[in-house]
Amino acid sequence: MNFNPQLDLRLVRTVPVSRADVWRAWTEPERLKPWFCPRPWTTIDCEIDLQPGGVFRTTMQSPEGQLFPNRGCYLAVETHQRLVWTNALSAGFRPSLMTETCGSDEAGFMFTAIIELADDPQGTLYTATVKHADVKGCQTHAAMGFEQGWGIALDQMVAMIQSSARD
Amino acid sequence: MNFNPQLDLRLVRTVPVSRADVWRAWTEPERLKPWFCPRPWTTIDCEIDLQPGGVFRTTMQSPEGQLFPNRGCYLAVETHQRLVWTNALSAGFRPSLMTETCGSDEAGFMFTAIIELADDPQGTLYTATVKHADVKGCQTHAAMGFEQGWGIALDQMVAMIQSSARD
Repeated sequence: MNFNPQLDLRLVRTVPVSRADVWRAWTEPERLKPWFCPRPWTTIDCEIDLQPGGVFRTTMQSPEGQLFPNRGCYLAVETHQRLVWTNALSAGFRPSLMTETCGSDEAGFMFTAIIELADDPQGTLYTATVKHADVKGCQTHAAMGFEQGWGIALDQMVAMIQSSARD
Repeated sequence: MNFNPQLDLRLVRTVPVSRADVWRAWTEPERLKPWFCPRPWTTIDCEIDLQPGGVFRTTMQSPEGQLFPNRGCYLAVETHQRLVWTNALSAGFRPSLMTETCGSDEAGFMFTAIIELADDPQGTLYTATVKHADVKGCQTHAAMGFEQGWGIALDQMVAMIQSSARD
């Protein structure tokens, strides 16, 4: 996967859980909601139609109770290996309006996210890449705390997987 | 395929050529350029990377010599059956800037195009569906002459296929 440092953000981590468990945490609503937002934010709703052109929709809630709906569309679904979706399209590959997807042209941005999973002696090599349309979108996302936010969410995911394995 | 008459445009025709020939005319640059623009417009360049995430790029030329580049990305490639691409994304599924894709926010619009081919006693049932983000984009495309333009191009395609069969 080409990486353009002007336009793309990336988080690479080795996590002590299996590829199959990471895949489930990304693709089953009940296993996504517990970890998807850095707490004290929460994910209160999630809809997944796991096929290219299928919807990926979440609703995040701020600690003050404000709701932030996100709507996107899957582009590639390669079980246990690679998951790609974008907020530039909605269900059925229909183009999204920037204003609908992002709230406002100023703060929002279109992106495509790619989760890649590979075997690693310690568990799974986890690579999350987010591609933006332009430098401004990439910088906006970086300034929002992409790396910290996605890192904390990943920690929450690993803790959830380990906790459910102990049950 | 759901059809929303507020947001989608569609051309349905039976054409007296095979699905395989229509597929080649859509997916091989040298077989696309002769028919893709209603004459006297021409298609002077075409790049095709026929896989989801691969580029679909054309350059049209007006009778006055002005160039109009178009850049999109394939979303689904089902040989002889279904071809889907969008100008809302560029190669590698990267979101496109509206201003880059469409020249200006006023005249342009994002779309996803779906070509579906089915067997028919007379040859091939050809269905071209174009999905837009909003009513305005759909109306803009209709006012530009979607139905006539795509119809003329299809006639040119059929003539090219029949002509090359006679060679």
